[in-house]
Amino acid sequence: MIFAIRGDILYTKKLGVVSENIDSYIICEDGIVKGVYKTIPSKYKNIKVYDYKNKLIIPGLVDTHLHAPQYSFIGMHMDLPLLLWLNKYTFKEETQYKNMAYAKKAYNIFIKDLKKSPTTRFSLFATIHVPATLYLMEELEKTNLVGFVGKVNMDRNSIKSLQETTDKSLKDTLFWIKAQEKLKRIKPIITPRFVPSCSLELLKGLSKIANEYKLPIQSHLSENKSEIELVKSLHKESSCYGSVYDDNGLFGNTTNTIMAHCVWSEDKEINLMKNKKLWVAHCPSSNRNLSSGMAPIRRYLDEGIKVSLATDVAGGSYLSMFRAMEDAITMSKMRECMVDKNLRALNIKEVFYLATKGGGEFFGKVGSFETGYELDAIVLDEKDIPTVHMDKLKLIERFERFVYRPNDKLIAKFVAGKKININ
Amino acid sequence: MIFAIRGDILYTKKLGVVSENIDSYIICEDGIVKGVYKTIPSKYKNIKVYDYKNKLIIPGLVDTHLHAPQYSFIGMHMDLPLLLWLNKYTFKEETQYKNMAYAKKAYNIFIKDLKKSPTTRFSLFATIHVPATLYLMEELEKTNLVGFVGKVNMDRNSIKSLQETTDKSLKDTLFWIKAQEKLKRIKPIITPRFVPSCSLELLKGLSKIANEYKLPIQSHLSENKSEIELVKSLHKESSCYGSVYDDNGLFGNTTNTIMAHCVWSEDKEINLMKNKKLWVAHCPSSNRNLSSGMAPIRRYLDEGIKVSLATDVAGGSYLSMFRAMEDAITMSKMRECMVDKNLRALNIKEVFYLATKGGGEFFGKVGSFETGYELDAIVLDEKDIPTVHMDKLKLIERFERFVYRPNDKLIAKFVAGKKININ
Repeated sequence: MIFAIRGDILYTKKLGVVSENIDSYIICEDGIVKGVYKTIPSKYKNIKVYDYKNKLIIPGLVDTHLHAPQYSFIGMHMDLPLLLWLNKYTFKEETQYKNMAYAKKAYNIFIKDLKKSPTTRFSLFATIHVPATLYLMEELEKTNLVGFVGKVNMDRNSIKSLQETTDKSLKDTLFWIKAQEKLKRIKPIITPRFVPSCSLELLKGLSKIANEYKLPIQSHLSENKSEIELVKSLHKESSCYGSVYDDNGLFGNTTNTIMAHCVWSEDKEINLMKNKKLWVAHCPSSNRNLSSGMAPIRRYLDEGIKVSLATDVAGGSYLSMFRAMEDAITMSKMRECMVDKNLRALNIKEVFYLATKGGGEFFGKVGSFETGYELDAIVLDEKDIPTVHMDKLKLIERFERFVYRPNDKLIAKFVAGKKININ
Repeated sequence: MIFAIRGDILYTKKLGVVSENIDSYIICEDGIVKGVYKTIPSKYKNIKVYDYKNKLIIPGLVDTHLHAPQYSFIGMHMDLPLLLWLNKYTFKEETQYKNMAYAKKAYNIFIKDLKKSPTTRFSLFATIHVPATLYLMEELEKTNLVGFVGKVNMDRNSIKSLQETTDKSLKDTLFWIKAQEKLKRIKPIITPRFVPSCSLELLKGLSKIANEYKLPIQSHLSENKSEIELVKSLHKESSCYGSVYDDNGLFGNTTNTIMAHCVWSEDKEINLMKNKKLWVAHCPSSNRNLSSGMAPIRRYLDEGIKVSLATDVAGGSYLSMFRAMEDAITMSKMRECMVDKNLRALNIKEVFYLATKGGGEFFGKVGSFETGYELDAIVLDEKDIPTVHMDKLKLIERFERFVYRPNDKLIAKFVAGKKININ
């Protein structure tokens, strides 16, 4: 299975540096990039060519944190901060996914929109409910997107209708892991909701499962000041929020772990994040909407912590990873301007890295067109955003227009070497 | 000329309060709203009805500050703060509007997008060039939108190719005012670019013209810290940035005046703004992109200063006033969260007011469906943003989804009593 994609190709190997390849070809063999060439090398001369001449082609975007069941109220209820928002709207909404008819209807809308979005890979939260989570995974598998889906675990401090016993939570998790084993492109990820929702016994049990089945882990960390106060009041034994996960085997000790937000991480937590090789999922839209704050992303980058970008639907109010890039830039500008002059704002090339290779690394060699990478690519459509300057633009300027302008309609989308149906 | 519009009607009379009218009728006579009714009153029973049953109808949105010539690079060059951005990109781009072929091509793209946008009224900056400005006004007149357009004045501190002599700037302004007298819906507004671009002689001359022709005034005020430093170094005689305008007759003394930004206004400037009954045009997107800062809008509202919303294309990176509302909310949340807990964040009902009646008052009785208001209305299209909750949503929730989700396609648009062509 070998083919080429022709177009104006932009990608990044390294934070802040882009590779611009006007009218070039990506060669893909068995799902893996063999190289980017100005002309097709003679040994490949008879292969199929997807010809997108003059169109901008970039790696697929990677959304490392979002909540599929919350898509049903995206863009609403944005008037409360995190904990109040969870209790007033979110937990009630998630309860509904116990009802399979409801779950199917809501997840179908989500899947349809995700399929046509610029996102090719994702790591998402479902709910505590196994049947609805399996439905979501099976339907996502059919789209040929690639991603992790987590059955959520929560055995305390929720509303009664959205709370498991510790025992059932762990048993359901094991059942769920077995029930979805046949899936190829959608994989399970261990998903304790966040510390306030999980007893230590549950955290320890999930750590054991993650290690036994060699599964990655995702959760939330130091998102909002009230949440951090709550964690402190629940866990006087721990030196910081992150150490509650760490002390219970869920902080990147043996398996890839991604933590969303990290808006208010203190020095000792940052050291822990660094030492345990944690991924940060930066969610700027959600952090604005839920009055959480502006995360010190430049510091994490300077410290060598792995940073990715995410929409955090539906604390985040869009599914577009282009907008996540815009908000990552502008939030970092406001942080520099209003709070801390020492943390230089992010620029367009840097967020391009975070949204592609930065998050892609959580999936292996993903998010770049370097040789050996899995081919995830999206072909962008500039016809709805005309400009008199079109003929003179650099590829990075053409890319910047997608970050700032609402124009997510794609011409084509390739995920793990497959051209997928986006309609 | 009398007709009704039927649909689910949402509007606001007062900051923070909305009027929800499910399946109701707005009656419009000679361009003026006669009332909103549950059924058509008998005396109107045979009038034409535009039937948008089940569709959401709100007042047209009012964009009180944007730069038409900058639309040609919208969504690009967002890597520099204000003064560097002006010198590196903006002044050079505006210079091109000396060339009428270029101006026509670029303005045609802008006008096409503005026509179909949710904006019904606007106050915009053109360039210093009279022929291109007249072209823009004449073409806008054909769209049946309503707004103010300003020939820009600048006689110092620009690049050579975009600088007038004081004398020519004033003479061109007089010529321009006469040349567009026949236009009915598009009107002139006196537009000194900002203090750094205008000598005191020019400011005084423009004040004289504004008073003689009874024209409103627009400019920029206290946008960015470097700009404010520059103004202070140029005008040691003035007690604050605003007083440079005020001392020279351009600060709302005798004519409606709108000042964009006001991010860093000090107490004495705020007093002046209040006493002179100035309008603030709050431009959150631009303030983020150009690293200007987060304006203390709650304070202005508490002080009784008139606040409107604006996109500030192309410091702002979108033409959508829905996104201006989103950013006004989220910037105020981040200000409250990171900088000043005393200034409570804006909510959805408040920004609805700012984007309709708040800016509308600059145009007279505009921006509401109260009796006696000019009829500006837009009919919104929810078909691309399905949700399982559709049947249960309040009108304000349906509206909130437009603020947060990219979905600006309209079903219909009425401006000053006329149904206009949006294609």
